[in-house]
Amino acid sequence: MVDTKFFGSAGEFKLSDLFELAEISDVNISSQDASKLITNAQVLDTAQTGDISLAAHKSYAKALSTTNAGVVLVSKALADQVPDDAIAVICNDPHTSYVKILKVLFPAKRRRLAISPIIPGAAKPEIESGVTIADYTTIGSEAHIGQGTVIGPNAVIGPNVKIGRNCFIGANVTIECSLVGDDVSIANGVRIGADGFGWLDFGKSNIKIPQLGRTIIQSNVEIGANTTIDRGALDDTIIGENSKVGAMVKISHGSKIGRNCLIAPMAGLAGATILEDGVLIGANVGTVGHITMGEGSVAHPRASITKDWPAGSKIAGTPAQNIKDLWREYAVVRRLAKGTKK
Amino acid sequence: MVDTKFFGSAGEFKLSDLFELAEISDVNISSQDASKLITNAQVLDTAQTGDISLAAHKSYAKALSTTNAGVVLVSKALADQVPDDAIAVICNDPHTSYVKILKVLFPAKRRRLAISPIIPGAAKPEIESGVTIADYTTIGSEAHIGQGTVIGPNAVIGPNVKIGRNCFIGANVTIECSLVGDDVSIANGVRIGADGFGWLDFGKSNIKIPQLGRTIIQSNVEIGANTTIDRGALDDTIIGENSKVGAMVKISHGSKIGRNCLIAPMAGLAGATILEDGVLIGANVGTVGHITMGEGSVAHPRASITKDWPAGSKIAGTPAQNIKDLWREYAVVRRLAKGTKK
Amino acid sequence: MVDTKFFGSAGEFKLSDLFELAEISDVNISSQDASKLITNAQVLDTAQTGDISLAAHKSYAKALSTTNAGVVLVSKALADQVPDDAIAVICNDPHTSYVKILKVLFPAKRRRLAISPIIPGAAKPEIESGVTIADYTTIGSEAHIGQGTVIGPNAVIGPNVKIGRNCFIGANVTIECSLVGDDVSIANGVRIGADGFGWLDFGKSNIKIPQLGRTIIQSNVEIGANTTIDRGALDDTIIGENSKVGAMVKISHGSKIGRNCLIAPMAGLAGATILEDGVLIGANVGTVGHITMGEGSVAHPRASITKDWPAGSKIAGTPAQNIKDLWREYAVVRRLAKGTKK
Repeated sequence: MVDTKFFGSAGEFKLSDLFELAEISDVNISSQDASKLITNAQVLDTAQTGDISLAAHKSYAKALSTTNAGVVLVSKALADQVPDDAIAVICNDPHTSYVKILKVLFPAKRRRLAISPIIPGAAKPEIESGVTIADYTTIGSEAHIGQGTVIGPNAVIGPNVKIGRNCFIGANVTIECSLVGDDVSIANGVRIGADGFGWLDFGKSNIKIPQLGRTIIQSNVEIGANTTIDRGALDDTIIGENSKVGAMVKISHGSKIGRNCLIAPMAGLAGATILEDGVLIGANVGTVGHITMGEGSVAHPRASITKDWPAGSKIAGTPAQNIKDLWREYAVVRRLAKGTKK
Repeated sequence: MVDTKFFGSAGEFKLSDLFELAEISDVNISSQDASKLITNAQVLDTAQTGDISLAAHKSYAKALSTTNAGVVLVSKALADQVPDDAIAVICNDPHTSYVKILKVLFPAKRRRLAISPIIPGAAKPEIESGVTIADYTTIGSEAHIGQGTVIGPNAVIGPNVKIGRNCFIGANVTIECSLVGDDVSIANGVRIGADGFGWLDFGKSNIKIPQLGRTIIQSNVEIGANTTIDRGALDDTIIGENSKVGAMVKISHGSKIGRNCLIAPMAGLAGATILEDGVLIGANVGTVGHITMGEGSVAHPRASITKDWPAGSKIAGTPAQNIKDLWREYAVVRRLAKGTKK
Repeated sequence: MVDTKFFGSAGEFKLSDLFELAEISDVNISSQDASKLITNAQVLDTAQTGDISLAAHKSYAKALSTTNAGVVLVSKALADQVPDDAIAVICNDPHTSYVKILKVLFPAKRRRLAISPIIPGAAKPEIESGVTIADYTTIGSEAHIGQGTVIGPNAVIGPNVKIGRNCFIGANVTIECSLVGDDVSIANGVRIGADGFGWLDFGKSNIKIPQLGRTIIQSNVEIGANTTIDRGALDDTIIGENSKVGAMVKISHGSKIGRNCLIAPMAGLAGATILEDGVLIGANVGTVGHITMGEGSVAHPRASITKDWPAGSKIAGTPAQNIKDLWREYAVVRRLAKGTKK
């Protein structure tokens, strides 16, 4: 979610002003709706009456039906499904319009401030007793460090980041826009809460989608050296309790990792990858985004996961398939090639 | 090996006390054996009379036959092969029991201390003449830096680490639990001696295997930016003389790289990968663990190495095979697909 | 190019002295040519009369025909094609001889100095007004930081590096031998301008090819966390205007990225990869070096690009091929394997 602790919006805007400042003119807003006050942006699930939200295409339909958002930017196809209490603003290209509005609510300078460790005028960080902080660390304004936690040299903890008790934060680690539980171990050189890779108008103007979510690291998680875990774009990236992440892994924005998962080194999970509890991800596995691995499923090393897999699946290959099917394919090709000449 | 310079054990334990503290009750220890004193843990090859060691399954048989370990945790199947001078403790699940004992010998707090640069009360590091140390570096207690070596800004050298002469250690590098030879060049952001990714009870309780070994970087090695080289779990990770490792490579715990190897960027070597001398590893090659590439063998970019390959092999593909066989397979599939419709 | 701001040569050498110091004896240099003065090395395209250049094999022929180099090390096959104004030195192994000469012109100690932030006796960096510099940063001698730029904690900016206006340089970033435009955003832990992975005599003596080029980051580029972008060997690595690079990407020496490209996380571009404008590179795509992707072409995630592809191509697979052909192959194999047993 867009946590105002990390990203405070630029203020309260009348809906009509918001569209004017965003330079979006191809929408109709009734004079009654024009004065609706908006202060923040949220995904449909968490949006409240002061929030503006997005329903870009049919995958949003379910969340749209129960949203409490004050305003929803919506495609023509979904316009009928906006709840009565929300103002529907029909857009030709809702996603692009939404990004323009996000940039009014959260201008680039404010976003940058959110990750600059020291906020002028803000309170000092709160360090509980029994914390060990090595040299040349930077602990951001209003950050909170729990008892017994050790922070290595050159670590940078962003403003408002909360770190629990008895954690071990290695040297040269950076953590921003994140909440970290107890007994978490983060190895040297890890990047938590960095910007996700989100763009519109690919290969042309490359419009940046502001990255306004958080990273949540639950208790007893361990993260290997030089791994990178993005914060969410609007919702959160979550690493569930007692899951263990190897070195040089990339976990992208909005992924949700369940409890007790193992993610081996060099795996890469694209945006909004869902792993249910106890999933095993082999070394250098990749996923496309927006897929779910069911509870206890296993992806063998280097599998390329391109779709949902149910609980208990055992998959491998590119694109990943049931491992038995894959071996059958390998055997067929091997048999055919035997004795042929190139 | 578990080098007491890096990981000092919590003390000397009577064998019976060790099992009691580790809460392992499903073993039989004779009253005579119960008072045997144990101070450390080592792999079978290097274990001495005060050490406890592990023989979990048949791949341990050869080393077991010649071990000098005082005590060996052993599976029922291997019990007969424990040398007469060693005490055999038969376990249902020797690996899990061994991990429990390691956690008594080396409690988490002591392990953490080993990688915290400054040990209270320990001696200062020893810096030879002609060493250049940039700003904001942390040189651990009792570390040793050889003449002519340059250490870049924000580097962190762990306690007891030895670095040879005329080395170049880049900015933001971290080195812990390691011995580094002469004329070694380590680029910015490299992590040497980090924890390996070792777990038991996958996807359930995820029991951590303590990582107690070292990393040994021999002379004339060069390591590219943001690469990560784990220390061993119990034995050592070794990078042999004059081998060159590219950027963003991951070399996992217990791997042994011979002399004059080239490991191109983004390769990932899983635990206990053995490369003999002069092996060439292409970009983004991956290995499963516990395999050996023979002298002078070549793995083409992106090969996925799943088994041993003899000296002089030239391999490619997933799973890796002789490159000629691979091209033959590609040709067969291409021919079959020509003219078909999807 | 070898920019004397970053790599000043060891001096002016008579051609005969240069070969003697480099211990190259298998060449014929006329007594007239022997006194030719050489001060620097450049690729054929940019070399001038005081420069020594290389034409190792037929791919150099085109650039050779128009070079202004004073001296060219050349293979026998290309000797006839050296322009009249240049001195041709015919070598059995021109590449190895050239590397030996580079090591005389740019001895290892000087190369190291180029990336050590503070050069004794050199001028201080020039910081424009309105620059924010966090704690524990190191800004190299004679570096230049443009107005409005923010530099995060523990960042290291090498000597003579130029950074434009309104840039955001994250925490723990290192930048050396580089020129950076305006409005560039570089996330935490990025390495810009590191050594490329260039060697001769693979797997035997592993002779290092000195890395003497630059990295040029044009305006409006954004680079994700823990990414590594090498500087060129002799020419430049270039990231074109408004291109966006994800986290944990590796871009190797001498690559030229056009404008408006998107390079997704964990992609790896080998040396001298050329992307024309608007190319889309999916996550974990790899390239062999010396290939060109035409304007607006698209490589799907994990494609392994092994040759040139024209503008507008849509490719996938290993080795990468037209995506429609790939799906046809997948379908054929799947059909054949159905019903078979392993």
